Amino acid sequence: MGIPAVILPFIPSREILVEYARKVSSLAVEAQKCNVQLWVRVHLNEDALSDFVLFHRLCDGVPNVGILLMMDPMPTMQTPAASVANQIIILHKAIGANLKAISFPTKVFLTNKRGYPTLAKSHQLLFTEALKRIGRTIRILLEGVSVHNPVPPSASNANGNGNGAGEANATGATKCLPYLQYLRHIRERPEVKAALDSEEAILERAYLDSLQRPLQPLKDHLEFSMYETFEKDPVKYTRYQEAIFMALSDGLGPMKDLNSTVVAPRRVVIAVVGAGRGPLVMRCIRAFQQLQSPPGSVSLKVLAVEKNPSAAVYLRSMRQHHPEWANVVTVVEGDARKLSPIMIENCVVDIVVSELLGSFGDNELSPECLDPFLLGPCCKPTTISIPMQYTSFLAPISSVRLHTEAKTQAQIPHDGAQSLGLQRAMETSYVVRTHAASQSHAEQPCWVFNHPLRVHTKERAAHLEFAPDPTFAAAAGCGYGGVDLGVAAIVGQAPSPSTGPITIHGLVGSFTAILYARGDAVVDISIAPHRFSKDMFSWFPIYFPFHQPLHVPSQSNVSVSMWRKTQDDRVWYEWYAKVHRKGEVIETTSIHNVNGRSSYVSM
Amino acid sequence: MGIPAVILPFIPSREILVEYARKVSSLAVEAQKCNVQLWVRVHLNEDALSDFVLFHRLCDGVPNVGILLMMDPMPTMQTPAASVANQIIILHKAIGANLKAISFPTKVFLTNKRGYPTLAKSHQLLFTEALKRIGRTIRILLEGVSVHNPVPPSASNANGNGNGAGEANATGATKCLPYLQYLRHIRERPEVKAALDSEEAILERAYLDSLQRPLQPLKDHLEFSMYETFEKDPVKYTRYQEAIFMALSDGLGPMKDLNSTVVAPRRVVIAVVGAGRGPLVMRCIRAFQQLQSPPGSVSLKVLAVEKNPSAAVYLRSMRQHHPEWANVVTVVEGDARKLSPIMIENCVVDIVVSELLGSFGDNELSPECLDPFLLGPCCKPTTISIPMQYTSFLAPISSVRLHTEAKTQAQIPHDGAQSLGLQRAMETSYVVRTHAASQSHAEQPCWVFNHPLRVHTKERAAHLEFAPDPTFAAAAGCGYGGVDLGVAAIVGQAPSPSTGPITIHGLVGSFTAILYARGDAVVDISIAPHRFSKDMFSWFPIYFPFHQPLHVPSQSNVSVSMWRKTQDDRVWYEWYAKVHRKGEVIETTSIHNVNGRSSYVSM
Repeated sequence: MGIPAVILPFIPSREILVEYARKVSSLAVEAQKCNVQLWVRVHLNEDALSDFVLFHRLCDGVPNVGILLMMDPMPTMQTPAASVANQIIILHKAIGANLKAISFPTKVFLTNKRGYPTLAKSHQLLFTEALKRIGRTIRILLEGVSVHNPVPPSASNANGNGNGAGEANATGATKCLPYLQYLRHIRERPEVKAALDSEEAILERAYLDSLQRPLQPLKDHLEFSMYETFEKDPVKYTRYQEAIFMALSDGLGPMKDLNSTVVAPRRVVIAVVGAGRGPLVMRCIRAFQQLQSPPGSVSLKVLAVEKNPSAAVYLRSMRQHHPEWANVVTVVEGDARKLSPIMIENCVVDIVVSELLGSFGDNELSPECLDPFLLGPCCKPTTISIPMQYTSFLAPISSVRLHTEAKTQAQIPHDGAQSLGLQRAMETSYVVRTHAASQSHAEQPCWVFNHPLRVHTKERAAHLEFAPDPTFAAAAGCGYGGVDLGVAAIVGQAPSPSTGPITIHGLVGSFTAILYARGDAVVDISIAPHRFSKDMFSWFPIYFPFHQPLHVPSQSNVSVSMWRKTQDDRVWYEWYAKVHRKGEVIETTSIHNVNGRSSYVSM
Repeated sequence: MGIPAVILPFIPSREILVEYARKVSSLAVEAQKCNVQLWVRVHLNEDALSDFVLFHRLCDGVPNVGILLMMDPMPTMQTPAASVANQIIILHKAIGANLKAISFPTKVFLTNKRGYPTLAKSHQLLFTEALKRIGRTIRILLEGVSVHNPVPPSASNANGNGNGAGEANATGATKCLPYLQYLRHIRERPEVKAALDSEEAILERAYLDSLQRPLQPLKDHLEFSMYETFEKDPVKYTRYQEAIFMALSDGLGPMKDLNSTVVAPRRVVIAVVGAGRGPLVMRCIRAFQQLQSPPGSVSLKVLAVEKNPSAAVYLRSMRQHHPEWANVVTVVEGDARKLSPIMIENCVVDIVVSELLGSFGDNELSPECLDPFLLGPCCKPTTISIPMQYTSFLAPISSVRLHTEAKTQAQIPHDGAQSLGLQRAMETSYVVRTHAASQSHAEQPCWVFNHPLRVHTKERAAHLEFAPDPTFAAAAGCGYGGVDLGVAAIVGQAPSPSTGPITIHGLVGSFTAILYARGDAVVDISIAPHRFSKDMFSWFPIYFPFHQPLHVPSQSNVSVSMWRKTQDDRVWYEWYAKVHRKGEVIETTSIHNVNGRSSYVSM
């Protein structure tokens, strides 16, 4: 019948919550068959949300049961700043807990001088934040009879006669128009439009909460369209050019000194490892052109190393048709790990430039790929790597949606078998534009890789401790994009630490990378929220699901362990989390992906 | 290579427990492929066991990682009674947590007057209890060098010279013989032999922890061999005969008065509903023969109602060849729910005897089967039902083994599909001779059915609250068999309430039934441990698994809800459990088998 959702009443008292859950579960099974959602009314406060979370666990986290968040009048006991702080934290938690819609009862509207409905400043803030976070997927409801009586524009000078109780029975469309107009007006605010209607926001729509298997660039060849998309990143290549320029400047300082006593022109050799269709090759040339060194005294050679044959064809044609490339670029088709000096015309490489990083930093095997080259015969001890260093970050994440999506992966055919199966599905990490998700704690660094690396092992282990965050990291949003400083300022004013339990559904991984650094001058890129490179879109975060949602009672710590393991021809991650409080273990997950049994990256 | 198990070291401190778990998990994956068990040494104390339970959760409860329980010297700070009480509770918990073997280091043995090794009284008690509980499946190890130097029998009068340190390096077989002889001697104690070597114990072996789908007697016909097995029960039919006799005595009192004024002989009509091969028919005849009423004044008519055609054939042949049956028994082939007076020769039934109970009382649809008959035209308001009343019982149960078995059911082909699937497997109740299992709380009554029943609904709901039991219900053992009063007396002496967390893996269901009662004189049968009908073997308990093991921290309550739901042609159960402490919900399961989506009994 095209009904998107059925609205269910508020959750009753704890005593009969379980009976309500049984009834709704039973309804949900039927509703799922005809693709109908069930929205349960939830007041915008800590207790009501906790009750929903408990209730939803009883319903086995069924995805078609979601929250219809009721915009209640702000509590009058608190200052507006304090109450909006608390409510923004609750909104943040609700987003992870399967928020589907927000309802504005007409009675929460105030009346402006001309009798028009308007929202309190704090409600405006809350609604704006909700729209910015999930305006692309949420529904907004207006409920109740009209209780405002605006003066028509023609009579705008007359005094409005608000709150006409006699109008309460009047129905419908024209009566609710002023409310809708007002809500639409907020939707059209510049900060909301920037979040929802930008070109990037529109392009992202198809990717929101949609899980992708991480690339296996060493095993598979990238497709052409993928290169094309990545090349459009407005930030990444600019940063790379800056880093290359800095490295060249530093390197050519001593070189110039050296050259002053000899006449032979110096040559600087840059190897671009994984050159793809050549964006970094181009940036090397540009950076070199930026240098102030006298032309002719130093020349540039760029080795474009690429193992993908069709990309190598493209590179060769670039070399042929692009005048800047002609005498500078040498295309080397082959695996960087196995290059010998003879394959690169016996050059000794001064700078290695690569863009092999994945969403979790090392997860596309940048270390395994770069080290053999950097420490091999084509390089020297002073060879510089761009990036120089990268750090993986982790944070717990609350998201019914992401967990549901991961479970859905179990049904996908795999390796000739009928389906991937639940164990494998939940022990795989996914690249995903997190959206209906809430990072619950500030991300923490996991481990670091430096290049060139003189230590042998590429295995790592991190044991992180996430103490309860009174703001539930509301400013970190969905775990993608920078920390929202406006939100941080607001939630920092919450009068008392927010307690209440949460449920976490896995971990969200990100990275920061230092492309090049000279003392305090650092050129870096990052998708970790605390230092997000604005407008960079090349990487979405990575999601490590838990088999089961992990319930975190109030005031409890979450301990997370993450391992990077390597063996012969593969690299994999194992992960695990534990909830504890005052020395008592309350709950743990099992160790996921033991021995890489479910997922790994091939070398 | 035929190696049954590899012994692994004690679990290290909490700090590196997770690394140990990772290593053992990784080993377990490989060991599983070659069918090798991994036994982790665990000291016989609360902390060590808690650590194992946590460790095993990290390993995802993998079944081939189990406990090798180390028999440590008894703590000297406590009285022997107190320490054995605590240790028996730990043993009880260990059995649920995957206890695979017990090790006796030679140093825990004392030395008797003649230099022979012997165990302290408290160790003897503990070992005896272990053997009684799981002697049929556990392995016993003896470890360490011989530290006893018994006097050979030929020199039995000389003083033994014990603890020869110089003997420590001497190897092997002859040296350990006295220890083994001693352990075997305990194994041969009458109470141990009674538990392990009785005819019933030997017959049960094949059934231990082996899950069976509950019978669907209304949908399927029982097989001949099944009738035969059930008929051998030495207790059940005796009780039935007692009950029938009591009912006849009560019923014939007023009848005799009535008859005293008339000459026509009175007739009593008993309907055996679900007569099978006739054991209850026979008991009706016997009970009637026991009556003191003057022969001829009262006659007996037994209607043997049976819907299974092959059983009906058997009944008819019994009627033909058994002289006692000839003029008494009428075989009525048909479904008791649909009988009309004409089908039973217009008799009005005085007593209905049935044995339609399942392990959980009503789970083989005794209420659905009896009510239409009892309240229908073949009976009268005073018709008596044997049984008169039955009560379902529930308790939480800790058993890695049962949970593993339930998960294994997921692989079993079902209804033409390739496999039953995990959701269905974990939302089905199973009849099982629980064994490597520990009931963790005293069972509680769930609900009651009375016959004849004048209320319409056969739906039920029970909400039970299990407070922490300081003895962890050690005397209830595996949930099958009577409460062990000896154990109850011992664990009652535990000096302080045992705290420590436990993990529960589901619920164990049982029942009691009152066949007939007259005031305080009650004839009943029961498989609920608190009132187990000794030697009755017709029913094993029922196991309701949880999707995931439920961790119960110390001092926490377990709330359990169980629903009996009915609809058109089916009956099913739904269940759920919650862990809470001081008003805080710590963990919950989801509601299992919502709408009977995974399992139900057909009417």
